[in-house]
Amino acid sequence: MKIESVDLFYLAMPEIRDIGDGSQDMLLVRVRAGGYTGWGECEASPLASIASFVGPMSHSACHPVQYSVLGQTLESPGDIARITRNVRAKSLDLLQADHTLSGIEMALWDLLGKRFEQPVYELLGYPVAKPKTPYASVLFGDTPEDTLVKARRIRAQGFTALKFGWGSFGRDTPADDADQLHAAREGLGDDGTLMLDAGTVWVEDVEAAALRLPALEEVRVLFLEEPFVAGALRSYRELAGRCENIRIAGGEGSHNAYVAEQFIDHSGAGFVQIDTGRIGGIGDAKRVADYARRKNVQFVNHSFTSHLALSASLQPFAGVAGDWLCEYPMESTRLATALTHNRIDVDNSGHVTAPDAPGLGMDLDLDAIREYLMEVDIRVNGASLYSTPELLH
Amino acid sequence: MKIESVDLFYLAMPEIRDIGDGSQDMLLVRVRAGGYTGWGECEASPLASIASFVGPMSHSACHPVQYSVLGQTLESPGDIARITRNVRAKSLDLLQADHTLSGIEMALWDLLGKRFEQPVYELLGYPVAKPKTPYASVLFGDTPEDTLVKARRIRAQGFTALKFGWGSFGRDTPADDADQLHAAREGLGDDGTLMLDAGTVWVEDVEAAALRLPALEEVRVLFLEEPFVAGALRSYRELAGRCENIRIAGGEGSHNAYVAEQFIDHSGAGFVQIDTGRIGGIGDAKRVADYARRKNVQFVNHSFTSHLALSASLQPFAGVAGDWLCEYPMESTRLATALTHNRIDVDNSGHVTAPDAPGLGMDLDLDAIREYLMEVDIRVNGASLYSTPELLH
Repeated sequence: MKIESVDLFYLAMPEIRDIGDGSQDMLLVRVRAGGYTGWGECEASPLASIASFVGPMSHSACHPVQYSVLGQTLESPGDIARITRNVRAKSLDLLQADHTLSGIEMALWDLLGKRFEQPVYELLGYPVAKPKTPYASVLFGDTPEDTLVKARRIRAQGFTALKFGWGSFGRDTPADDADQLHAAREGLGDDGTLMLDAGTVWVEDVEAAALRLPALEEVRVLFLEEPFVAGALRSYRELAGRCENIRIAGGEGSHNAYVAEQFIDHSGAGFVQIDTGRIGGIGDAKRVADYARRKNVQFVNHSFTSHLALSASLQPFAGVAGDWLCEYPMESTRLATALTHNRIDVDNSGHVTAPDAPGLGMDLDLDAIREYLMEVDIRVNGASLYSTPELLH
Repeated sequence: MKIESVDLFYLAMPEIRDIGDGSQDMLLVRVRAGGYTGWGECEASPLASIASFVGPMSHSACHPVQYSVLGQTLESPGDIARITRNVRAKSLDLLQADHTLSGIEMALWDLLGKRFEQPVYELLGYPVAKPKTPYASVLFGDTPEDTLVKARRIRAQGFTALKFGWGSFGRDTPADDADQLHAAREGLGDDGTLMLDAGTVWVEDVEAAALRLPALEEVRVLFLEEPFVAGALRSYRELAGRCENIRIAGGEGSHNAYVAEQFIDHSGAGFVQIDTGRIGGIGDAKRVADYARRKNVQFVNHSFTSHLALSASLQPFAGVAGDWLCEYPMESTRLATALTHNRIDVDNSGHVTAPDAPGLGMDLDLDAIREYLMEVDIRVNGASLYSTPELLH
């Protein structure tokens, strides 16, 4: 098969709110080859990713992403790896390229799985997908009372693991933050697995983070996620050294496998969280999962959008029983939930598993998302470089 | 002063060739505040950077870059640092933002220097700019004979330091590569300082790189630059351990100070090369220069485009005598040379020095570059997000 077309669709909610909800827009990717169609999704900033796909070449190491994808042979996982290498080499100086590649690479796996009638995890070498414990991933309530109610509701829905994050946590006083944490623990119950996402709020300030450690230890969080920005590894390591029972998590900002491997090597973290919609796709995420296992660090997916993205994020560690946790989006927008007819549901035993179906196993509902499609036009010197393609085609 | 406007101009040569010449296009940045105008330049991929400046918000950590810049107070270097922090926080998940920020941040320094009638290096705390030894930075000739002629010509122009790179080096046989290296050394002369830029050709393959070490040692290169891609730090360290007299250099891909600091900490390199047009601007580059000095690693600018970008790249280490080398572009396109009326020339003693003039000290020739201006239009749902602004205004 040759890759015949790569179409990018910018979809967004009618109103984008200034909150930490990453499901408010998406860049959906459709790839066609040999009569098959594959779908993928790039995380965040759709317009910049579209521009990096079509923008004119700057020089030999700064081609648009499309240069390394269109017309390429696609017969095997090795072809996907080759296309990824070419994008990295030919778009070396185009920073956004890694995010753009991510959704495309996902779609290539989806397409190949459909072609061979195999789930992606089988193409990756896993004979079977293991059940994971989903943790409900939600934003803090505005007050401790709201957080308490939210935690109780989620526990009542059957979740035993829960992560709160963002909101004003870390910007309030340590006492206010402690109130939020105690509310979360109370709502979840003593026996639940509680996690905390600080959303990089302390940037690189170890002392500011350390002020919250006593309350975090007290409510027994499993991990404290992203106390600092992705690159602040010295701060990560220092904070990790001050923790007693809790562990540090991070890595979602990794835009290639090297960044994640450095995080594993030098942060002191116990968990590495990878978003297949940012790291360059499923292949790079699998490389990180393998590396993490060798280094005794737990791999967890980062996922806060659609179930298409959730399926893609599950594939890289689907077959690894030891990597038992799965971030499970719970507050996605109508756009994200409308994208797929089917869902990756929590089963009767309280687990989720990567779909046992060809490719990523998700059935898209294009009619339902059509109303969210943004009409984008990019022209340079009068020539059209991009115009939103037809979705129902 | 409040930042009144930030205008982005995409300029490009009529024909972009598929070679490693980064001066074939640019994204020029004009910032206005309090009656002053500052100029900066982003490295590579102008369209993606424009899109990241204007693209609609995805969520609270994925604002367009303009959100954190327009209307901000600009009175001191501290304001520039604050704006940079805000861009990083509010555009956390927008990968391209670091490249976009770079040219804007440069322009803020230029503007502030003009306001206070001080060179940027003085605002950075350096009382005086030290002379640097420029190394002529050029692409390999197509044949060893071409390289020999090129090296002789550059030596005759008065340069004692010279770096060849890119072309087919590293993709040819080790014997072919050795021929190129010997031609370079012969043309430069025994007493010249020779350097080699491999342009990431071996990706992460230590053995492929090691095959070239004997010839590199034989012709006594000062450093081997970018044998591997930016993140492959384990490969860097292993190769560095196999070098006898030559040193490894790299780091130009760093898109924030953390990436560069990890390179310094873990690559085993003797030189860190920073492009102020990629790393987020002059402030982040200065942070890296300070860190490199503490770690006994030499700081060198990465610069292959205009003298506006060259001036910006010199400021972060202008006052440090020990950082004695300066990458000096020698084969820039007409666009890059036309940008400025004045140039940073090599003086009679063979040195270059950051301009002793307010801001970045460069006088732009807008009439001369007008013919290279690209007309860009970006529309989303019928609304214009970007249309090339008036340059002569």
